[in-house]
Amino acid sequence: MAVTEAERDAMHRALALAANGPRGLNPQVGAVILSPAGTVLAEGWHRGAGTPHAEVDALSKLAPGEASGATAVVTLEPCNHTGRTGPCAQALIDAGVSRVVYATGDPGDVSSGGADRLRAAGVEVVAGEQADASRRLIADWLTVQRLGRPHVTVKWAQSLDGRAAASDGTSQWITGPDARADVHRRRARADAIVAGTGTVLADDPALTARDGDALYPHQPVPVVIGSRATPADAAVHRHPNAPLFYDTRDLSAVLADLRDRGVQRVFVEGGPTLASAFIAAGVADTVLAYIAPMLLGGERLALTDIGVASIGDALHLRVEQWLPLGADLLAIAHPATAPVAGEDALVATAHPATAPVAGQEGS
Amino acid sequence: MAVTEAERDAMHRALALAANGPRGLNPQVGAVILSPAGTVLAEGWHRGAGTPHAEVDALSKLAPGEASGATAVVTLEPCNHTGRTGPCAQALIDAGVSRVVYATGDPGDVSSGGADRLRAAGVEVVAGEQADASRRLIADWLTVQRLGRPHVTVKWAQSLDGRAAASDGTSQWITGPDARADVHRRRARADAIVAGTGTVLADDPALTARDGDALYPHQPVPVVIGSRATPADAAVHRHPNAPLFYDTRDLSAVLADLRDRGVQRVFVEGGPTLASAFIAAGVADTVLAYIAPMLLGGERLALTDIGVASIGDALHLRVEQWLPLGADLLAIAHPATAPVAGEDALVATAHPATAPVAGQEGS
Repeated sequence: MAVTEAERDAMHRALALAANGPRGLNPQVGAVILSPAGTVLAEGWHRGAGTPHAEVDALSKLAPGEASGATAVVTLEPCNHTGRTGPCAQALIDAGVSRVVYATGDPGDVSSGGADRLRAAGVEVVAGEQADASRRLIADWLTVQRLGRPHVTVKWAQSLDGRAAASDGTSQWITGPDARADVHRRRARADAIVAGTGTVLADDPALTARDGDALYPHQPVPVVIGSRATPADAAVHRHPNAPLFYDTRDLSAVLADLRDRGVQRVFVEGGPTLASAFIAAGVADTVLAYIAPMLLGGERLALTDIGVASIGDALHLRVEQWLPLGADLLAIAHPATAPVAGEDALVATAHPATAPVAGQEGS
Repeated sequence: MAVTEAERDAMHRALALAANGPRGLNPQVGAVILSPAGTVLAEGWHRGAGTPHAEVDALSKLAPGEASGATAVVTLEPCNHTGRTGPCAQALIDAGVSRVVYATGDPGDVSSGGADRLRAAGVEVVAGEQADASRRLIADWLTVQRLGRPHVTVKWAQSLDGRAAASDGTSQWITGPDARADVHRRRARADAIVAGTGTVLADDPALTARDGDALYPHQPVPVVIGSRATPADAAVHRHPNAPLFYDTRDLSAVLADLRDRGVQRVFVEGGPTLASAFIAAGVADTVLAYIAPMLLGGERLALTDIGVASIGDALHLRVEQWLPLGADLLAIAHPATAPVAGEDALVATAHPATAPVAGQEGS
């Protein structure tokens, strides 16, 4: 049966409810329970890992039997997985819900299959209502499910000829105010900001996202990678979020730990060595190269070695945009082997096991 | 007295005549002699250094006395200089010309002043008719007068991170077919194309300007700079123009010699060492950086050292255009200290001693 106007309205409401929830390990999900007549019986949303899922949150507001014959409108396919909470699909079945309308499928390897379980229990299931809006809301979480790790943006500023600084190490400012403001806006959209100990020792960066002198409301968690000690009076210790320190060269392990902490987007901008290491390890999903209209020459390179020996091994990029920022130019690019729209992916298929759309050739 | 319609038509014709002449040491100039009634008595144009100037060429077609009371319409201010030919201003006076209409002033230190001499002899002089068209025609020659040397374009291709090749030296092809075709079109607009002996030995370039497999009608003279010998079977020896070899590091001396050979535009694209040397010497008027969407890392830099020690010494550029060419991007830029519109300058004032328009700050 087609989606009713009441269900459409309920999905709109469920998406707004979902947005109340936090970014993190779990997706943001909202749910509305409708009576057979289409009136709202209950609402719910997910408040983060370890708390009830949206459907269960909504059902908890109803007396036993009250959901019998009702319709559940949910922004994500009800889960089929017993984790810290039981499977939502079974909870809906147990509550006597007779129809479920959801927006987008659950891509999780262990959590998906809820729709099948519902149907097997005789529940009518309609998928795809306002799917794009739901995917946009949880795009970063879907990306984490697809990649198996947080999305990584590697950012650097360079002169046209690829230098990060002049021969004596001076570099302030290579890029202009428009480019620097753009960097801060993008930092504010990340969950973690990563620097190497070399950069921390050399530049003592605050690793905050600032709008002029003010801090943006959302601040990424500062992350420092490397074996050298960070001084007790380093600016990073005054960051609104407690910094994380990783004394390792295993970037996959760092990313796995960040994922387990609910980090969905990582912004790497802490120096040529670290940027090159992320690129060489094949875990850079987006590169942001801010190109200043100047020549520097010399040996202070924005990228050092990325493991390319021969031209055939070059890391080809698909440039999403060459974006002028004042006198500077920002190249927003993705490895040509990565799925299209790596940064703001609207995942076209629910299950990551299916092949991603092939990247365009970079040249 | 205002310019008449007959004089306007004559200037249009004189510009077409001028274009018959060759590019070279002297400017392209055309002249038309009109009777007092406005009918065409004679036409002339300059055929290159050592041959008569346009006015003298036109007057030579008239019988003695025939130009008495006539009007001379000339695309450049009649010269006031006795070189391989006598001063045109005096020739016009001697022929009895009573009025001279010219398009643009002669910027030469020794050749200018013709208009003053004419006026002093009682000849009516009108300047500026179709001046822009005349300046466009001889823009490169005017640039040589302004700079005191040929205009220099330094071109290189690089990966986004500023490399000219992978670590093992392989580099074909960093940029795509659109970028390579653009290079050849620009080579065909140059009078000389310059490579270092290192590039000649490593790559054996043809240094021709090619439209697909065919040669463009105009070919730049191949120039090789450096102390190593070019092999007898090098491709440059098969160039349609005889190559010039300079065993020197004195780029100013090279440019002075090329200027004396009538070279107005020099295209430097022969390797990182030579490109960096031209930039370091401060004689790069235009830089063309073809940026390929790839990362290479490593030590094969598109530019090496350009003499910048500290960020305050950076060579700031004014980017005229960021031009997408297929998947590549061409940065067309000029040193920020150079006059605006360095490549295709329409010289706004006739005399180079007056201050050029200040360059915009690059950042």
